[in-house]
Order: sequence, then C-alpha cells, then structure tokens
Amino acid sequence: MSISIESPADFHVHLRQGSISNLIVPHVRKGGFDLAYVMPNLKPPITTTEQAFKYKAELEKIDPNVEYLMTLYLSPELTPDEIRKAKQAGVVGVKSYPRGVTTNSDGGIESYEAYYPVFEAMQEVDMVLNLHGEVPSDADANIHVLNAEPTFLPHLFKLHQAFPALRIVLEHATTRAAVEAVKKCGSTVACTITAHHLALTVDDWAGQSWNFCKPVAKYPDDRQALRDIVKEGHPRFFLGSDSAPHPPHLKSTSTPTHACAAGVYTSPVLLPLVAHLLETFGALDRLQGFVSKHGRAFYRQPIRQQKHARIVTLRKTLEKRLVEDKYVLDNESLVPFWAGKEIGWEIAEIAQIN
Amino acid sequence: MSISIESPADFHVHLRQGSISNLIVPHVRKGGFDLAYVMPNLKPPITTTEQAFKYKAELEKIDPNVEYLMTLYLSPELTPDEIRKAKQAGVVGVKSYPRGVTTNSDGGIESYEAYYPVFEAMQEVDMVLNLHGEVPSDADANIHVLNAEPTFLPHLFKLHQAFPALRIVLEHATTRAAVEAVKKCGSTVACTITAHHLALTVDDWAGQSWNFCKPVAKYPDDRQALRDIVKEGHPRFFLGSDSAPHPPHLKSTSTPTHACAAGVYTSPVLLPLVAHLLETFGALDRLQGFVSKHGRAFYRQPIRQQKHARIVTLRKTLEKRLVEDKYVLDNESLVPFWAGKEIGWEIAEIAQIN
Repeated sequence: MSISIESPADFHVHLRQGSISNLIVPHVRKGGFDLAYVMPNLKPPITTTEQAFKYKAELEKIDPNVEYLMTLYLSPELTPDEIRKAKQAGVVGVKSYPRGVTTNSDGGIESYEAYYPVFEAMQEVDMVLNLHGEVPSDADANIHVLNAEPTFLPHLFKLHQAFPALRIVLEHATTRAAVEAVKKCGSTVACTITAHHLALTVDDWAGQSWNFCKPVAKYPDDRQALRDIVKEGHPRFFLGSDSAPHPPHLKSTSTPTHACAAGVYTSPVLLPLVAHLLETFGALDRLQGFVSKHGRAFYRQPIRQQKHARIVTLRKTLEKRLVEDKYVLDNESLVPFWAGKEIGWEIAEIAQIN
Repeated sequence: MSISIESPADFHVHLRQGSISNLIVPHVRKGGFDLAYVMPNLKPPITTTEQAFKYKAELEKIDPNVEYLMTLYLSPELTPDEIRKAKQAGVVGVKSYPRGVTTNSDGGIESYEAYYPVFEAMQEVDMVLNLHGEVPSDADANIHVLNAEPTFLPHLFKLHQAFPALRIVLEHATTRAAVEAVKKCGSTVACTITAHHLALTVDDWAGQSWNFCKPVAKYPDDRQALRDIVKEGHPRFFLGSDSAPHPPHLKSTSTPTHACAAGVYTSPVLLPLVAHLLETFGALDRLQGFVSKHGRAFYRQPIRQQKHARIVTLRKTLEKRLVEDKYVLDNESLVPFWAGKEIGWEIAEIAQIN
C-alpha cells in the first residue's frame, strides 16, 4: 500500500542556529517536507526584518530546496512600521511567547493590550499572529502545566473579537478545550497540531524526559479530541510539528538542580510518523489535508507558487523498521522522537512537481 | 529557636534489601526517626510472617535502635490463617498495591472482593490495611497519573463500609479529593502524607526526574489541601515519608526506551525537611502531632512501649545549610530529595527517653 502527498508543509518548526543547524535543516526534506514555517526564538530572538532574512539566508545556504516562511518574535521592540516593512519583505507571521514558558522565551509577552497597535498593523497588511497559547504557572491561582492552555483561551477569544480579520494560529494545541475554542472562532482562526501530541499523554512524559515538551501532552481525553478533529478533516486544523531538537545530554538527564530540556524532535521522521499515527486512529485518508492542503490554504501558500515542490510517496514498510537511534554530524548528534520504536510507514519515492 | 519532638515515627518507608540497605537503614535515625513502618515490596514481596521476621532481623542487624513495624504484601497467597499467624507474631499491617502502578507492584491487586475473607480476618484480629490508593492508567477510560487517586476513592469508601472496624490507612495522599474522602470516613480510617508532597506540584516533576514519584505530585490546589489538613492538626493525618531510594543513574537519566525510576528519597533529612516545610505554611506548632502523636495514636504505638525512644531537638540553622548532594557507602550511593537546596532546620540534640 502506498499514499502520495503533494508538497508536505510543516507550519511550525525550530531550525536553531550555529553548527547544529547543519544537522537539523536537512531533516526537513528528509522527513518528507518542502516547506518550513520557521520559529524566531533564537538567541537573541528574531525581532527585525533584517534579522529574519539574514537567518533565512543561513538556512538556504544549508538547504536551498526548502521554502522557508519567516516569522518575528513579538516583543516591545516591534513597531507597526516594522510590521509594514516585514510584510513588504515577505515575512509571514509574528510569534507570541508567554514569558518564561518554553525555550528562549524570557522576552515573551505578559499581556496583549500593549501590542494592539502592532496587531492593528498586522491585520491591515494581513500578517499571521502565531500564539503559543499558555499562561505562566502560578501556584496561588492554581495554574500549572496541565491547565496553562485552557487558561489561555480567553485571550484567544478576546484577540479574535478585537481583530476579527487578523489571521491567528493557535499553535500546538493539546487540549479538548483548545480544539473547541478554535472551532468556535471564525475562519480567520486556525490551529496547528503536532505529531507527538497525537501520540502522547501525561503518562508518557511522567518520568520520561524524551517525551517532555511544552505544552506538555495532556490527558487521554484531550488526545482523543486532537485525533477526532484530524479524523474529521476540519480545514482549520493542520500539522505544525513543533519539532524542537536539544542536545541528547540535556534531554536524557536531569540533575537535582536542573530539569531536562523541553522539546521533542520529530523532523527527520515526520511524514512517516504522521502517517503511522493517523493510521492508528483511522484517519489516513485525511493525511494530505492535514500535512499540506489545510495549512497551505490558510497561509495562502499554494503549491504552484513554490519553487521546489514535490510529490512524496509513502509506503507501508515491508519489513520491520525502527526509528533511528541517533543522527550524527561532526560533533553534533540528535535523538529523534520514537527512537528505536517500530514505525509502519516509510518514504518510498519523491518526484518533483515544480 | 528550637523545637523538641518526642520519638518521631515514620509510618511509611522503603528500606530495600541487600547491600543498599546498609546505606538506607541508618538514615532512619539520621533523619530523626525512631520508628519505621516498613513496606513489603521487595523482590520477591514479603507475603508471609516468616519472611517478614527474617527481613526484620536483617534490618535490626544494620540498626538495632529503630522500632521496625512489619507489613505483608496483599496477594492471592495471603490467607485468613496467615493473617492470624502474622498478628500473633507481631506483624502490624498488610499493604495493598494496585497492579503495575509503582516499584515492584507487578503482583498487585486488581479488585478487592477476592480479598474479603482476608479483610474479615484482619478486622477480627485488628490488623491495619495500608492502601496505595491509585488505579492503573487506562487511556480508554481517561484514567491517567493525575486522576488515578481520585478514581480510587470509591474503593476506599466501599471497603470502609464493608469493614467499618477495619483500620485502614490511605497512603501518601496527594489530592484534595483524598483528604476530603478520609475526613468523611469514620475514626478507623487515617491517611499518611509525605514530606515531598507538601513541597511539590506537577510543575516540579515536569522534566525533572528527581521529583518524579508515584503517586505523582498533583496541582497547587491539591498541595494546598494537604498543607491545610496538616495545619488544622487533624488527628487522622500523619507523616508517612514514602522515602523510596533508587540508584542515582536510574533517577537522573531516562533513555528513549526507559523512564527513570519513580521515588523520592527523604529519609536522611526527614525531620528537618518536615519542619522546614511546615514552617513555610505556618504549621510548625503541628510538627509533633504530624510526625509522632497522630500516627502513634492510630497505630497504638505509644512511646512508653518503645525500646529506643528519643527526644529529638531541632534548631533553626544558624548558618546557611544545604541538603547533602550525596550519601556514599562502599559502592553504593544515594542522592536525597532537595540535594543542594537550602534547609532552615537541623537536628541539634538527641536525648534518650526509654
């Protein structure tokens, strides 16, 4: 059995910087994807058009055959003028991080009202707002990693109401509440879902640091809601892998004073992994919509406009195939999600479209 | 400032077996405690009176100055006759583990009805039933590590109703629901609370394997309920540390295929740690009740009957004091909970009572 997908697009990916990028960037195409919507949480974060295109040039130097869509990091430095400049230059979106919730988010936002002039400009020029939809933990208010996303959702509604024409993506949804919230919103609000959140629940990261990421995987009922909306083929829900590599020693080990790094690395096995997961809950017929069509439609990124589009054909693995234990390049190494686990699909053939 | 406690008693502790016990057992007294209620989840589990007393002799060989209260592991081999024999010999309780939920619990129970004849005998001879109050995870029923304890509570009510005179201890409660459930029960039902569950929430073990234990620490509101019941000085709630040592490499590291070990090791710093924690929420005046009087009253273990009882005096640390990074003996080493963290109390003086 085989299945062919037109130009898969990953609408949320971390490609990092420096030498580790030489290992990471080629994994976008290795994992079956032609388009990468690139997160701006570098050190320092990407806050200007100039930085974004300097970064894009670095990525293209490593692999020129991927379509990189660039984003800016929402921060007080960002002005409406910079938004107009960014749009003209081809920057696609602006990513908002809550302060301190995930990797390199120390400069993240604390409240949205201060950014309304920026959002006004984004709405005007039609840029996309990407929301990391969690509020910081607060023990006094009983806010913790498990309810940080539901607690964020009123912000989503408020922003959508204030800027109904602003395209907003709630990133890496993990809860039934988030799925319901996005469904309730109008056509300008969409939602990415990762591969790993279709696989994991809280039980999988309890004591298992390789499955630990932010947002954390939630309860089985939440995972079911994610699976159901993918199976339904809802056009405003699509793949954003949030593939987030960390050095293996920071993933595997925590010390009494330091937690392990949050993030799951799916890029190099992404398309086979998504096919495998969708098959487990009977949604294989939704694969092309989920990994290409829906996101491209929302982002207005038709395949015909893309330089290096491909048709990627997956086949059921004929022999038992395990996810690689490790990828190595020079002094860098990375361990993928599901390392050593059996996976039922593999890339069989790739043909150029454009 | 100093505070003196009469013969502290830890009503739930894991002392293990083999060479590692030489390091662990002396930590009971080092941590300020004279009595250890010893868990039976060895390999193989302690299921007979004979095994229990063989194990007790091993522990006494290592440190003869602790009062060891022995327990049996509830399993199909346990008969009403064995219960009567155990009681006569001085075994105090029977511990029930749900299958597969925690360390060495593969032989744990799946449903209670089959054990009613055993419970009948226990009620008759006045032995204590110690419940690990969690049900196994079940994704289809949306049962996971965070709601495994609340989902167990109907079993507690049912057992208490069926055996109203049977003394039952719900071990290491972690949720508001569990606290409320125990309060609702009659005087034959009590509850242990660990030191670490007074300190941790889910945020503390997310990506931090040293704080990972079963039951997992829950939400801030649950921790508040534990703190409140201690502060209230409720006589049916008392300390059971569930101090559970694991080799450091199994605690610090998870591999893609193996999670880290569940358990937090508090024994060697237990009394100072509990004092420190109670002080943070204004319950220092409840210290003696929580670590000695309440548990001794429920278990009918008065200090006057104990061979090696002491008065342990704690004082506020005069200089900054950090919890030890590691304890080493021969080839064995263990890392305590809160290693490297500042602790505000220390043992100043110990005087013999009996």
